[in-house]
Amino acid sequence: MSDEKLPSRSENYSEWYNQAILRAEMADYAPVRGCMVVRPYGWALWENIQQGLDRRFKATGHVNAAFPLFIPMSFMEKEKEHVEGFSPELAVVTIGGGEVLEEPLVVRPTSETIIGHMYSKWIKSYRDLPILINQWGNVVRWELRTRLFLRTLEFYWQEGHTAHATEEEAEAETLRMLNVYTRFAIEDAAVPVVPGRKSEKEKFAGASKSYTIEAMMGDTRALQSGTSHNLGQNFARAFDIRYLDQQNELQYCWTTSWGFSTRFVGAIIMTHGDDQGLVLPPKLAPIQVVIVPIYRSDADKSRVMPVVEQIRNELDPFRVKVDDRTEVTPGFKFNDWELRGVPLRIEIGPRDVEQGTVAISRRDIPGKAGRTFVPQTQLAGQVAEMLSEIQSSLYDRAKKFRDDHTFDPKDYEELKEAVQKGWAFSWWCGSSECEAKNKDDTKATTRCIPLDQPGGSGQCIYCGARATEKVIFGRAY
Amino acid sequence: MSDEKLPSRSENYSEWYNQAILRAEMADYAPVRGCMVVRPYGWALWENIQQGLDRRFKATGHVNAAFPLFIPMSFMEKEKEHVEGFSPELAVVTIGGGEVLEEPLVVRPTSETIIGHMYSKWIKSYRDLPILINQWGNVVRWELRTRLFLRTLEFYWQEGHTAHATEEEAEAETLRMLNVYTRFAIEDAAVPVVPGRKSEKEKFAGASKSYTIEAMMGDTRALQSGTSHNLGQNFARAFDIRYLDQQNELQYCWTTSWGFSTRFVGAIIMTHGDDQGLVLPPKLAPIQVVIVPIYRSDADKSRVMPVVEQIRNELDPFRVKVDDRTEVTPGFKFNDWELRGVPLRIEIGPRDVEQGTVAISRRDIPGKAGRTFVPQTQLAGQVAEMLSEIQSSLYDRAKKFRDDHTFDPKDYEELKEAVQKGWAFSWWCGSSECEAKNKDDTKATTRCIPLDQPGGSGQCIYCGARATEKVIFGRAY
Repeated sequence: MSDEKLPSRSENYSEWYNQAILRAEMADYAPVRGCMVVRPYGWALWENIQQGLDRRFKATGHVNAAFPLFIPMSFMEKEKEHVEGFSPELAVVTIGGGEVLEEPLVVRPTSETIIGHMYSKWIKSYRDLPILINQWGNVVRWELRTRLFLRTLEFYWQEGHTAHATEEEAEAETLRMLNVYTRFAIEDAAVPVVPGRKSEKEKFAGASKSYTIEAMMGDTRALQSGTSHNLGQNFARAFDIRYLDQQNELQYCWTTSWGFSTRFVGAIIMTHGDDQGLVLPPKLAPIQVVIVPIYRSDADKSRVMPVVEQIRNELDPFRVKVDDRTEVTPGFKFNDWELRGVPLRIEIGPRDVEQGTVAISRRDIPGKAGRTFVPQTQLAGQVAEMLSEIQSSLYDRAKKFRDDHTFDPKDYEELKEAVQKGWAFSWWCGSSECEAKNKDDTKATTRCIPLDQPGGSGQCIYCGARATEKVIFGRAY
Repeated sequence: MSDEKLPSRSENYSEWYNQAILRAEMADYAPVRGCMVVRPYGWALWENIQQGLDRRFKATGHVNAAFPLFIPMSFMEKEKEHVEGFSPELAVVTIGGGEVLEEPLVVRPTSETIIGHMYSKWIKSYRDLPILINQWGNVVRWELRTRLFLRTLEFYWQEGHTAHATEEEAEAETLRMLNVYTRFAIEDAAVPVVPGRKSEKEKFAGASKSYTIEAMMGDTRALQSGTSHNLGQNFARAFDIRYLDQQNELQYCWTTSWGFSTRFVGAIIMTHGDDQGLVLPPKLAPIQVVIVPIYRSDADKSRVMPVVEQIRNELDPFRVKVDDRTEVTPGFKFNDWELRGVPLRIEIGPRDVEQGTVAISRRDIPGKAGRTFVPQTQLAGQVAEMLSEIQSSLYDRAKKFRDDHTFDPKDYEELKEAVQKGWAFSWWCGSSECEAKNKDDTKATTRCIPLDQPGGSGQCIYCGARATEKVIFGRAY
């Protein structure tokens, strides 16, 4: 909340991002390095994200539970790739109740190990499968370079962990949850994402296959926005998760895990935000409509406020806020709610009261073009319609931006340029060597091999060898 | 899930409690000492508790946020009583990202300190007050003797933290939230609780005044089930939480905090449970109605199952589960759902299909007395009515039990006996010495000074001095 203008995105994208978050009171820096405080406005957005996802998890047969924050160090070491991937990032409790612990406890960076341990206890027979559990919670990864929401030491997320009797079921689950993420991102957040597979190099530590949804931010960088992993039998073998099959023989389970975090708040901000600040998708916005009463005299106030109340009541199906602060001007309020990205603003002044209309302004269309006058009697219907229009318009705009910044370079020289201004969607032979050299040259990584492929084959953009899949190369957060 | 009978409550209350939880799959022991895994059935109950409270928090003007898990050790030391109270219970992170930390980080046991630090940053003027924030999360206290739900190293809770301009407002907030807890416990959980004030000795480390709701468990012990603290200016002074008042002078704020945890799951189990297992209050039960289809032949099955489906649809407003397992008998299922405390069980067999009726059994009234036959056409209405009857009957039963085990001893000798079989509600002069001696003799502590007092005065049950308040003495969890 401040009169100062934000830095523009073209001037300093990173500073625009930080300032937009701080001034909109979405989050603040915590007194512990790399940690954040999610303030009420930011948390309300996250709660709406949680509801949108949780509903979809339950509709696909999942249940929630809670596993411990602390994991014995020895658990981490049971899956080789897992410990290699995570050990540089661990926070470790060595003292409890004033005494040095015999075995240090890791603050969970993710919960495959401790959940694997419990599954090995709970799963006896094929009748116990599949087991489909999700957990909402906090995790800690000791990151060195942190950014609000995008990368913080502690973050909030959900992690689903499932166990299945067959490889096919585990793969189907992995893709089912990738699809849940895709639909949520597109339908609720208006964030166009590309679902695809991660390369060997980019996959989760301990997974057989990792899938991701990738989104393009307003500076054309990619953001990995949710991941779904087929863990094969890697964790089942490490934690002895076995079941008796119908022939009464012991078999290892096939497990999956999938996660979606507060990082996505950053995705929403960087996908839709503009130089005035946040632009929140109506389905997730904590406040969908802000009403600003306009008056100068007490006489006007006493005419305006009853209409404001009446309209608030009529708009009860929506998330509405009346900004009745008296210490700031309407102009200040307009800027403030623009900064916070509220989709619709309604102004009601004495003339509106007389004429039985209100002025409504769309956050996604700045200035007069986004402002219309609506009869008070038609307001609820109009608001519903406009929110729905904003929702689809945000999606269309973001998708057009992504498409406009996705290139099909004809050779490696063109790719080098392409990844400076967006994504390159190119044939790739699949070798880690080509991937690594490209990264060294351009700082662009393979974001994903989209599920939606053109088919046929082509030549690897790096080495020219035959390639059967196209991959997205891009610089990423 | 098992055929074995539970230990009876009279035989071994503690073992009855543990076994009921484990077999009902509410929770399990974690591989870290003193930690628990809350399994899906237990977590679903907690989610319903969360919703019941969160709705009430929002209705009283509170918003949710999230503050960091880690607290710098130096923060803990700023409030003298607070650090004295909590330092024996801390889990401490000393290593992050492979390096020894310069300042160790405490895993939050409660968040007054870190939230106080943020409030001092956010609060500038009287216009910023009151600030009414709640957080749902996990905390860690290094307890030595742990019990599932009642006392675990890590537990789940909400902690509200508010800041006010005046002492009166802070006290009003403290009592408002105590009342929210009281109403939730009574209305949603059917747990009769006594709201009251804690003695000086029993109050929260750092509070000026602590309030509690106390419940009597099935073994007549007391369980502190939720607390609300008026922190005075203690934390405001320690963390420099100040505001400019309307005269433009700097003033310290007055703060409160209040918490309600997964411990209350234990309260529900021990208030309503019987020798068959859990008895869950309908408003919070994860499953309100279980339908058990009864058939022996495929022909019967094909007649029964369509009716089961039809009834499941009609009961859509309720939380319904159809138990269509084929590997266990109906008798096993009856025991299993009794153990899990599902309020209503519906059986549907071929004869019910013919006669257009179903058998409904109430969990709270065992055997034939609780079993009625209801025409299928009237089912939804009957279910609603029966759930509501069970809800109030559970409350009445628990309240009667508490009243029957609350005594008014005429002297200290009688008190000693009284606290072996329940609570003593007695005059107390308020001295910590009488309180301590009583505790040494009887193991009973002052549970609370109920808000609802008879008035007048009497003689302290211990020392005979004049007393103006009555207190509840009881052995507690």
